Amino acid sequence: MKKFMDENFVLDTKTAQDLYHKHAKKMPIIDYHCHLNPAWIAEDHKFDNLGEIWLVGDHYKWRAMRTNGVDERYCTGKDTSWYEKFEKWADTVPHTMRNPLYHWTHSELKSAFGVEKILKPETAREIYDECTAKLRTPEYSARGLMRKFNVEVVCTTDDPVDTLEHHIALKKEGFEIKVLPTWRPDKAMAVEVPAEFRAYVEKLSEMSGVKISKYADLLAALQNRHDFFAQVGCKLSDHGIEEFYAEDYTLSEINAIFDKVYGGKELTKEEILKFKSAMMYEGAIMDHAKDWTQQFHYGAIRNNNTRLFKQLGPDTGFDSIGDFTVAKAMSKFLDRMDTENKLAKTILYNLNPRDNDLITTMIGNFQDGSVAGKIQFGSGWWFLDQKVGMEAQMNSLSVLGLLSRFVGMLTDSRSFLSYPRHEYFRRILCNLLGNDVEAGLLPSSEMETLGKMVENISYNNAKNFFKF
Amino acid sequence: MKKFMDENFVLDTKTAQDLYHKHAKKMPIIDYHCHLNPAWIAEDHKFDNLGEIWLVGDHYKWRAMRTNGVDERYCTGKDTSWYEKFEKWADTVPHTMRNPLYHWTHSELKSAFGVEKILKPETAREIYDECTAKLRTPEYSARGLMRKFNVEVVCTTDDPVDTLEHHIALKKEGFEIKVLPTWRPDKAMAVEVPAEFRAYVEKLSEMSGVKISKYADLLAALQNRHDFFAQVGCKLSDHGIEEFYAEDYTLSEINAIFDKVYGGKELTKEEILKFKSAMMYEGAIMDHAKDWTQQFHYGAIRNNNTRLFKQLGPDTGFDSIGDFTVAKAMSKFLDRMDTENKLAKTILYNLNPRDNDLITTMIGNFQDGSVAGKIQFGSGWWFLDQKVGMEAQMNSLSVLGLLSRFVGMLTDSRSFLSYPRHEYFRRILCNLLGNDVEAGLLPSSEMETLGKMVENISYNNAKNFFKF
Amino acid sequence: MKKFMDENFVLDTKTAQDLYHKHAKKMPIIDYHCHLNPAWIAEDHKFDNLGEIWLVGDHYKWRAMRTNGVDERYCTGKDTSWYEKFEKWADTVPHTMRNPLYHWTHSELKSAFGVEKILKPETAREIYDECTAKLRTPEYSARGLMRKFNVEVVCTTDDPVDTLEHHIALKKEGFEIKVLPTWRPDKAMAVEVPAEFRAYVEKLSEMSGVKISKYADLLAALQNRHDFFAQVGCKLSDHGIEEFYAEDYTLSEINAIFDKVYGGKELTKEEILKFKSAMMYEGAIMDHAKDWTQQFHYGAIRNNNTRLFKQLGPDTGFDSIGDFTVAKAMSKFLDRMDTENKLAKTILYNLNPRDNDLITTMIGNFQDGSVAGKIQFGSGWWFLDQKVGMEAQMNSLSVLGLLSRFVGMLTDSRSFLSYPRHEYFRRILCNLLGNDVEAGLLPSSEMETLGKMVENISYNNAKNFFKF
Repeated sequence: MKKFMDENFVLDTKTAQDLYHKHAKKMPIIDYHCHLNPAWIAEDHKFDNLGEIWLVGDHYKWRAMRTNGVDERYCTGKDTSWYEKFEKWADTVPHTMRNPLYHWTHSELKSAFGVEKILKPETAREIYDECTAKLRTPEYSARGLMRKFNVEVVCTTDDPVDTLEHHIALKKEGFEIKVLPTWRPDKAMAVEVPAEFRAYVEKLSEMSGVKISKYADLLAALQNRHDFFAQVGCKLSDHGIEEFYAEDYTLSEINAIFDKVYGGKELTKEEILKFKSAMMYEGAIMDHAKDWTQQFHYGAIRNNNTRLFKQLGPDTGFDSIGDFTVAKAMSKFLDRMDTENKLAKTILYNLNPRDNDLITTMIGNFQDGSVAGKIQFGSGWWFLDQKVGMEAQMNSLSVLGLLSRFVGMLTDSRSFLSYPRHEYFRRILCNLLGNDVEAGLLPSSEMETLGKMVENISYNNAKNFFKF
Repeated sequence: MKKFMDENFVLDTKTAQDLYHKHAKKMPIIDYHCHLNPAWIAEDHKFDNLGEIWLVGDHYKWRAMRTNGVDERYCTGKDTSWYEKFEKWADTVPHTMRNPLYHWTHSELKSAFGVEKILKPETAREIYDECTAKLRTPEYSARGLMRKFNVEVVCTTDDPVDTLEHHIALKKEGFEIKVLPTWRPDKAMAVEVPAEFRAYVEKLSEMSGVKISKYADLLAALQNRHDFFAQVGCKLSDHGIEEFYAEDYTLSEINAIFDKVYGGKELTKEEILKFKSAMMYEGAIMDHAKDWTQQFHYGAIRNNNTRLFKQLGPDTGFDSIGDFTVAKAMSKFLDRMDTENKLAKTILYNLNPRDNDLITTMIGNFQDGSVAGKIQFGSGWWFLDQKVGMEAQMNSLSVLGLLSRFVGMLTDSRSFLSYPRHEYFRRILCNLLGNDVEAGLLPSSEMETLGKMVENISYNNAKNFFKF
Repeated sequence: MKKFMDENFVLDTKTAQDLYHKHAKKMPIIDYHCHLNPAWIAEDHKFDNLGEIWLVGDHYKWRAMRTNGVDERYCTGKDTSWYEKFEKWADTVPHTMRNPLYHWTHSELKSAFGVEKILKPETAREIYDECTAKLRTPEYSARGLMRKFNVEVVCTTDDPVDTLEHHIALKKEGFEIKVLPTWRPDKAMAVEVPAEFRAYVEKLSEMSGVKISKYADLLAALQNRHDFFAQVGCKLSDHGIEEFYAEDYTLSEINAIFDKVYGGKELTKEEILKFKSAMMYEGAIMDHAKDWTQQFHYGAIRNNNTRLFKQLGPDTGFDSIGDFTVAKAMSKFLDRMDTENKLAKTILYNLNPRDNDLITTMIGNFQDGSVAGKIQFGSGWWFLDQKVGMEAQMNSLSVLGLLSRFVGMLTDSRSFLSYPRHEYFRRILCNLLGNDVEAGLLPSSEMETLGKMVENISYNNAKNFFKF
């Protein structure tokens, strides 16, 4: 009987334990994709209580609470206190056994607060009080938490129209942890609602100083901001897309589509696809020119619940895994860039694990020896950011690609308490490798190579790949 | 070396064994979805021999026999005796090792008959004789078998035109096991063959006493029968669909489509989809109004083998898993109901396990806190009703939803010998939980919570959810 | 801690070890699908060095090397020596841990050369020299290697226009290992590029002696070659298809399509599908008439990388898993043949493991008792020819079909060093069965049946099924 969440949590064998304790644990964290608020880092935000830091904006927890029969007022309601919400969350925690929330909750309590109690109704008050008291000390500020977890770099997620003022201020100030922006131009290709697109383009025009009246202007303005992001240290782009867009189009078609939507007229489905295809291409060209890494998060169906979307807005827990047919369009997009020798380093994140093997073979098609692991299969994303999901991603990458070249984990999180997920990932990685050694599937004579592999996937690969 | 099918069958760890023996075993069975013949319960049917009870209508066994090279006359033939068929089945059993049939066969022999021998050609005669002798005793009648397995409720599957006479008789008689009907209106939306649809509508008119000449009449007649089913204790509906139907339509379109098909003309594919979409919507409204639970079994491709379909008819073992694209339509249907605040409690059963994770995230979109586990991912259905399939369903539900709120197992069976599948399910459930505890993935300090969870999934959740 | 690749490699339990050592190991190899060059067998080719035999044409290794950042000149380049290439491969091997290449490499070293060292930069030279020296001895010729691995039959893959001169010569000479051709008429339905199709048809006309000017002539010429293949001992056909083609068509449509493409005009997408559908049907009729087994390898997307395809041609490592929707067309094709009582024995190989369960239920639809295991789910193909892929295929076949009737392993390889993959497969098979026994999921009293099952899947099933 292994103890729950002790030092050998998730590490089933002695070899796995050695790999983790000797190689993985010591490596710093490069969190190359997250959704932290840079303002909170710049101002070194202090958190008021455990309810707030855990429940503000955490749609994973809200989904679990709703499933558990908890009324919306205790999830997102404005008329309930943080403690009332926390209590409902504590009621729900025992119901999350086998869900990643159960592990996340207790690993955050342990790693961040040194609390090893199980959260449940009976312990809710004491845990709340103990953690809240700690949160109000300087060690638990935004920066304090980043230091506590040995973070070296974080990349936030930013819109081309962002000022990046906080990134600039942090750099100027000399904060020892690199806080870099990521270029996320989703809104520049969101042409579904003409008025929203126009508003965005006007904002972009303002921020870039480029007057925009036609498609070429839009590209010029984006290029201007892309250059600005690069100056601030940006090394990655990111794209949230339902599917890969790789339609054939002509420049004159795209010009006309821009004029139409900018003029306020709704586009046909085909026009939307062509426009997105053009924007994907142009963005990829920009990224390649700067040796950035482009990331694609594809396959989510968002805002499925219209009633609650109207009430609560996006990113509130009503998104799900889609079942898109993707291989041919993904291949065509990557091939289109590669044919021109302009395929940037790329990370593909899929949301439906049924496509894991497809993705892993797809990245192999565009590995050309120029950069080790040039095209990456991203770590388990969103719903797949859990033990089963990470194991599936790493197993697929192992048997159909090279696990050793994997750039590893990222939190993708809005929370300063999510860094233990790197630990969780590393434990899972070491467990897979260690168990294979003990099962005779990998040679125990090669522990040095395996230790190095663990260090690389935990840290060195990302460091060498992204060149922050 | 664990013994085959001993008291700790499927239970790999001490903790799993404790969970099963202390918590799961004692719970009664609520079999909320099955295909038992209510007449057989009403008349307390006696079975003549082991060949008959096992091979009549069992397309799982027929498929295995055909794969094993057994001629059709020993599967469905009329000129062979039950013993001849049984012999061919006994020849086939050793070939089914690793197939659920091997476990089902031996668990039925053990649990129902106390026979612990392995079925194979050498033991065929003695097992047949021993079980046949028992079957001819009162303890082995339809009701006897239900009592033997501690059944508390069964829900059969019934057409709106059924008289429900047996359900009524059983209630009147005061049979201690609740036998309730389930509303399965598939034929009311089967508009592919106009003549068949017309015949069905005429039958429905007769049963409901509602004269039907237009679409509104059809709905009125269905409402009449829906009310009647409710009076007889119905709490669930069920729908066998290839895909989710959520097309846009107008009432006048549906009126015209009804007139066309009722008038004997074949519908276009688009008309069929619209009509089914309308019927899905109207049925869902009725179910919501009565606080019923609606079930959707989707994704099968039926009657693939035309030659043998013509010879043997439907449900004879020629159906298979489909690969439909479902997420958007499923989302649209559920959202359509939810937008009107008329989404009933719902269970989704999928047939292609590649969609497990999709489904589990989809149900999360419509959990609104009003009922714990309001939208359910149904237990492994049909081909997936086996150890691997059930584990996959429960693992997916665990990591992407709340396993603790699962309403659990059902047999979906035509046979009075299928109740051991509840035991099988509970063992698998306890094994997952117990192994996690012993691997340190769940805390051993929380055995009380885990024991309660096992009791809930085995029985209490269904009891509280369906409110029979 | 199990030793790496010792005699009990992959065999986790005593029962698994017994099954392998007592039952699997002794069985000869029937390699019923491979891509060996028959000329090399006829001339008893000698290999010059380990670099050549391992790296010539091995796109699996090239993909791994490219992913590892190795320049193309060390993969396919003409200006580098075999030893230079081998060195880069040796650099890459430690990076392939958890990839099947790591197991293949070391099992080939061990089984073929008796070398138990781990290949890595430090051991590259000595391993190269030792193996190269052995390769230059008669024991390591093409035939020598076949004898070393106890091969009884191999089926190569051949175009209808092939002379089969080497097969004929080998038969005449009385080579003790049967080397039989397989009918692979892919080019006869490749109508995408009219000029290429015409050139092929002209070649076919020449080889068959049938003047071809219309569709009926094409069929007559193919029938002529089909008969010729049968004379040379062919028992299988094989088809590499993206999807199943089962469109409706009329003979006059196909006649017109033939005339159009033969006349040099490009076909529409619909015409292509109809033509392929007709060819699939006609080929299946021919195969059924001769009691051959037809194989379908479907679901690959080939030549994804245009830039490197232009440079290197096909089969160089730029293919991947597709995500086609297949169930209905597959069903329709099989049903079309079955309806006429002309469905030949069939093996379906899929490339996307998400479809494993679909395939396994699909084959069940057409098992009619006439031949045990008439419709087969083929062993893990290409990317899936590895431990995880084989286990997934066998687990799916086990729970949804009859594992016991499986015709088992084939190498699908271009290399004379690939026979250890049969050993690998058998170990995996024995491991699944043995572990089930020790876990109490199969009865330990039935070891005789299990031993026989292992022997059957390793050898007897293929022998009885194909009737070479």
